[in-house]
Amino acid sequence: MLSAPSNAAVLDALAALLGERGLITGSDTEPYCVDWRGLFRGRALAVARPASTTEVAAVVKLCAAHGVPVVPQGGNTGMVGGGVPTETGRELILSLSRMNRIRAVDPVDMSLVAEAGVPLQTAQEAAAVVGCLLPVSIGSEGSAQIGGIISTNAGGNNTVRYGNTRDLVLGLEVVLPDGSVWNGLRRLRKDNTGYCLRQLFAGAEGTLGVITAAVMKLVARPAVLGTAFCALPSAEAALAVFDRFQRRDAAGIQVFEYMSRRSVGLVTELIEGVGRAVETDAGHYLLIELGSINRDGNPSAVLEEVLADGFEAGLVLDAAIAQNEAQRRAIWRLREEHTEAQKRAGASLKNDVSVPVSRIPEFLARATAACEAAMPGIRVAPFGHIGDGNIHFNLVQPETMAPKDFAAESDRLMEIVNDVVVDLGGSFSAEHGIGRLKTHVLVARREAVELDLMRRIKAAIDPAGILNPGRILDH
Amino acid sequence: MLSAPSNAAVLDALAALLGERGLITGSDTEPYCVDWRGLFRGRALAVARPASTTEVAAVVKLCAAHGVPVVPQGGNTGMVGGGVPTETGRELILSLSRMNRIRAVDPVDMSLVAEAGVPLQTAQEAAAVVGCLLPVSIGSEGSAQIGGIISTNAGGNNTVRYGNTRDLVLGLEVVLPDGSVWNGLRRLRKDNTGYCLRQLFAGAEGTLGVITAAVMKLVARPAVLGTAFCALPSAEAALAVFDRFQRRDAAGIQVFEYMSRRSVGLVTELIEGVGRAVETDAGHYLLIELGSINRDGNPSAVLEEVLADGFEAGLVLDAAIAQNEAQRRAIWRLREEHTEAQKRAGASLKNDVSVPVSRIPEFLARATAACEAAMPGIRVAPFGHIGDGNIHFNLVQPETMAPKDFAAESDRLMEIVNDVVVDLGGSFSAEHGIGRLKTHVLVARREAVELDLMRRIKAAIDPAGILNPGRILDH
Repeated sequence: MLSAPSNAAVLDALAALLGERGLITGSDTEPYCVDWRGLFRGRALAVARPASTTEVAAVVKLCAAHGVPVVPQGGNTGMVGGGVPTETGRELILSLSRMNRIRAVDPVDMSLVAEAGVPLQTAQEAAAVVGCLLPVSIGSEGSAQIGGIISTNAGGNNTVRYGNTRDLVLGLEVVLPDGSVWNGLRRLRKDNTGYCLRQLFAGAEGTLGVITAAVMKLVARPAVLGTAFCALPSAEAALAVFDRFQRRDAAGIQVFEYMSRRSVGLVTELIEGVGRAVETDAGHYLLIELGSINRDGNPSAVLEEVLADGFEAGLVLDAAIAQNEAQRRAIWRLREEHTEAQKRAGASLKNDVSVPVSRIPEFLARATAACEAAMPGIRVAPFGHIGDGNIHFNLVQPETMAPKDFAAESDRLMEIVNDVVVDLGGSFSAEHGIGRLKTHVLVARREAVELDLMRRIKAAIDPAGILNPGRILDH
Repeated sequence: MLSAPSNAAVLDALAALLGERGLITGSDTEPYCVDWRGLFRGRALAVARPASTTEVAAVVKLCAAHGVPVVPQGGNTGMVGGGVPTETGRELILSLSRMNRIRAVDPVDMSLVAEAGVPLQTAQEAAAVVGCLLPVSIGSEGSAQIGGIISTNAGGNNTVRYGNTRDLVLGLEVVLPDGSVWNGLRRLRKDNTGYCLRQLFAGAEGTLGVITAAVMKLVARPAVLGTAFCALPSAEAALAVFDRFQRRDAAGIQVFEYMSRRSVGLVTELIEGVGRAVETDAGHYLLIELGSINRDGNPSAVLEEVLADGFEAGLVLDAAIAQNEAQRRAIWRLREEHTEAQKRAGASLKNDVSVPVSRIPEFLARATAACEAAMPGIRVAPFGHIGDGNIHFNLVQPETMAPKDFAAESDRLMEIVNDVVVDLGGSFSAEHGIGRLKTHVLVARREAVELDLMRRIKAAIDPAGILNPGRILDH
C-alpha cells in the first residue's frame, strides 16, 4: 500500500473524471454501505458510478496510484459481504450499475453480450425475445447484476441442468488492478489459446479484476413446463427418484429441489396463504420441474409416469402435479417462502454447503444429529438444490431462546456442520462464496498448498492489493 | 534455472527413486521423443514412469532441485508438440502411463475418478458399465489419456452437446512445480471457496502442474441413436438446419459435423470402400447424430421430420438416415477418413480455427477466396465441428506441386487464414492448443495485456520454469 492518500485530492480527481452523476459522497453513500440483510455495514470514501469501461479503467488507475482500495459492487445482493466496504472509510465503492447496456443478443451464436451492470432479469428478458434462455435462476434476479453473478459464480435453481454461472461464461472484459483492460470478450465455443483467464475472474469476487462486460451462453428455451411436488419417506428415496428422472429425461430436468418436513412446516405455519401441496405429512419433499423445448413434449406426463413408478416402488408417498399456472405458482411458493418463513421463526443460521450427491442422506442424518445434540430444541430446517448436492442446512433458534443468545452460538454451530461436511468431502460454501463472512473458514478448512496457490495468484495479478482486499483471502 | 545439472547424478537419483520399471534411458527413450505425426522430434535425458502421485511428486521435486525441465506426457497424441522434448536432451519426459487406475465410478454422483494415465477409452468403458457416458469423443481416444485430454482441454465430436473437456472436470489432483501436491479431487457440483484452480490447470498443457488424477462429470447415456448424412446448397443452409435442430431437440444433438465438397470428395476418391452416402453432389454436407436417453425415444424420426421440413424449405438437397449399424458405420467413415484422405492427397496444412457460429459462412467464403488467390491450384478442404464454430480449415497442396515447396509456404498460408479468423473475432487454435507449434502465433495475435496476465500466472506458479518450459509461452 502507498502512503495514506489525501481523500480530498482523490475525491476531486474522481469528480473531474466522472462528473456529478458519476460520484456519490457523504451520507448519500450509506445505502451502498450495507448489505440487503443488514449483516454487513461499513463506510466508504465515496461511490464511483462510471458509465463506460474507459471510465472504470480510469477510476481503478487513479485508485491504484493513490493506494485507495476499490470495492466493486453490483446489485448488492450477495450473502457474504463481499461487496460492502469495511469500517475504515478508506475504500471506494465502484458501482457498475450505470454500465447497463446489452451490447448484443444472437440466437444463432446462442449468446448475449451484456455490460456488468445489466440486471439478471433484464438479460433473461433479452434472451427470451429471441426465443432463448439465460439459465441462471436465483431469488434476487430482479436486482442481481451480470457482473455480480459472474464474480460470485451464482448457483440457483437451474444449476442441476445448466451448471453454475461460470459454465455459461464464454468471454469477459475485465479492468485489471493497474487500470489496464483485458479484452477477452470472445463469442467462441472453443478457444485453446493459453490459460483460461475468464475462469480465473469468474468467482473471484472482484479480488482480481473488475468485470465490465461478458458474453453469456444461451440455451434453447423450454416451450412447455411441468411442475410436481411430492412427499417421500427418506432422503435416500429422494436420490432414487432423482436417479429415475436422470435416466428417463435428464435433459428435461429444470429444477430438482429438496425440502425437509421442518422447513416446509415453517412455511405453511408462518406464511399466510401458502397451503400444503400434498395431504401426506412426510419427512422429505421434492419440487421437480421438467421442461420440453418441443411444443409437442409433455413434461407433466413424464412427471406422472416416473412418480407413479416411484409410488409403486415405495419411493414416493404422495404427489401433486400442477394442472395450471395457479397451481404451479402455489407449489413454487412453498419453496420460495423458505427464507421469509425462517426469518419469522426467529434468529437463524444459514449454512450453504455441498457434498457429493450420493452423500446427501448421510450428511442430513449426521449434521441433524450433531446440531440437536449441541443445542436441545434447535430447529434444523434444511432445504435446497439436492440435484447439485447443495443443501441450505439452515438452523432456526429454539422457540424459547433469545435471538441474541442463539446468534452468539452461530460460529460454534457452523463449525459443527462444517465438520460433517468436510468429513464427507464437501464444501462449506457451495454457492454463496467467501466474501468477508468466511475468510477465517477458508484458512481453517483448506490445505496450505491450496491457500498458497490462491495467494500467489492474487499477488501476481494484484500485487498492491487494490481490489477488494480482505475478501476471499484475509491477507 | 540452476546451474547445469550433472546428468549422471540426476539419473542415479531417479533410478533409486523409481526402480527399473520406472525409468527408461538411452535409445529406448526414442519412441517418447517424437509425436505421432512425426512433426516434432527431440531428445530426452530419460523417461520417468512413476506409478503413484507420491512418485510423481518426488520426481518433480528432484528435477526442481537440479534445474531439470520436466515434460509431462500422456498418450502422446497431441497435435502441437506440447508433450515432445526439445533437441537439447536436457528435458526429462514424465510419462503418466503407469498411473492407470480408475479409483471410483459413481452413477449417483455421476462422476468418475481416474488417474492421469487412464486411456480415455478405458474411462469411457468404465462409465458405460454403470449406464453413464463420459462425453469426450476424439479420434485418438484409444491412446489419449485422461491427464492429457484435460491438460489440452480436448474438444471433439460431442462438444456441441456436452462442452469441452474442461467443462467435465469437477476436481483435480496436481503435482506443482516444487513437488508439492494440490489435492483438489472434489466430487462436488458446487463449490465457491476461492479461485477456480482446476480451470487454471485444465488446458495449461502441463506448464503449471502435472495432473495426476481427476474427477470427471458423467452424463446420462443415450439408449438410442439416429444418424443422418445430408447435402446442402450453402453454409448458410447448414446453420439454418442447425438452428432447426436446436429448437426441435437441442438436448438430443450428439454430433453436428460439417464437410465441404472437396473434403468429402478426397475421401470417396482416395479411401477404398468408402462410398457416397447421398447421390446429390453438393457444396456442403452435414453428419448429424441425435440421441435419446429414453428407450422409447425415436431420434431417427426426429431427423426425418426436421430434414424433411428443411427439404421443403430448400435448405436440404438430399439426405440419408442410417437404418442399421452398418449404414451408420458407413456414414461415419465419410467423416473419420478425412485425415487419412488428406494425407494421401499430398502435403497438407491443418488450420484448427474457430469463429462465432454465426460467422461460419463468411469465414468459409473469405478464407477460401484468400487461399485460392494466394496459391492457384490449392485444394481448400474444410470440415469440422460447425455446431461449435470450429472448422478444420485444411489446405491440401496443388496436385502438381512438390510437397516440400508446399510445406515451405505453410506459415504464409496459416497467417492468411488467421487474418480472416481474427478479423471475425475467432481463435487460431480452437481445440488443438499452442504447444510448441503456435507459441509465435500466440505472441503475434494476442494483446499485450493478455500475454502479460499469462506470464504473471506462469511466473507465480512455476517461477523456476521447471514444467514444460517454452510450451504455450515461449519465454
